[in-house]
Amino acid sequence: MTPLIDQPKWNEAGLVPVVVQDIDSKAVLMLAWANAEALSATIATGQGTYWSRSRRQLWIKGATSGHWQHVVKVSLDCDNDAVLYQVHQIGPACHTGAISCFDAGEQIYPKETPR
Amino acid sequence: MTPLIDQPKWNEAGLVPVVVQDIDSKAVLMLAWANAEALSATIATGQGTYWSRSRRQLWIKGATSGHWQHVVKVSLDCDNDAVLYQVHQIGPACHTGAISCFDAGEQIYPKETPR
Repeated sequence: MTPLIDQPKWNEAGLVPVVVQDIDSKAVLMLAWANAEALSATIATGQGTYWSRSRRQLWIKGATSGHWQHVVKVSLDCDNDAVLYQVHQIGPACHTGAISCFDAGEQIYPKETPR
Repeated sequence: MTPLIDQPKWNEAGLVPVVVQDIDSKAVLMLAWANAEALSATIATGQGTYWSRSRRQLWIKGATSGHWQHVVKVSLDCDNDAVLYQVHQIGPACHTGAISCFDAGEQIYPKETPR
C-alpha cells in the first residue's frame, strides 16, 4: 500500500500547491503550498498547515493570527499534482483582513471602469 | 500604468497557478497554470486558456473536448502569485468525465474506511 504522503507528485522543490476552500460558503480562500511535513501535520492535527516559501518554515495557519483552518477534507486532483483543503475558517483567511486572499487582490477581468 | 499582464508574479518558468471555480455551484474545478500568453488570451477571448506543462503548448480548454470555460471574472490574490478564474463550465471540467478534477482524485483525509 502506498503511504498517503507519497501520493502527491511533489515538484522539484518538494512542494504541492494547495487550494483552500471554505466548506460552508464555498469561497476560494487562498492558494498555498505544502511539503510532505505540512501535509502530514494537516492530516495528523486537522489544522491547515503549509510550507512558507518566503520564511522557509512550516506554517501552521492561525498559530500567530488565531485565524485557524479546521480541515474537514483533503483531496488530490486527478493527476495528483494539486491538493484541495476544505476547511472551517476561523476569522478572515487573508493577512490583509479580507475573507479571501482573492478578494484582497486586483480584479484583472473584466477591467473595472474608473468612475 | 502597469499593463495588466505584468501584474502576476510569474515563477521561474514564467507561469502562475490558476484556481478554476464554477461561478454557479462554486465547486473548485481544477488547478492549472498560465503563462502571460495564456492569461492574455483568456482576457481577450473570455475562454479559459492555460499553459500545458506536459504538452508544452497553449491549451484552450474545450478546443478538443468541447468542455469550454466561459470566464466571468479573473482575480489576483493579495500577493499576486496566484490567479482565480471564475467560470461558466460547459460539461465536466475533468478529462476523466468528473465534474471537478478534485472529485476524480483520491480523498486523503479523512481516510475512507474500506467496507
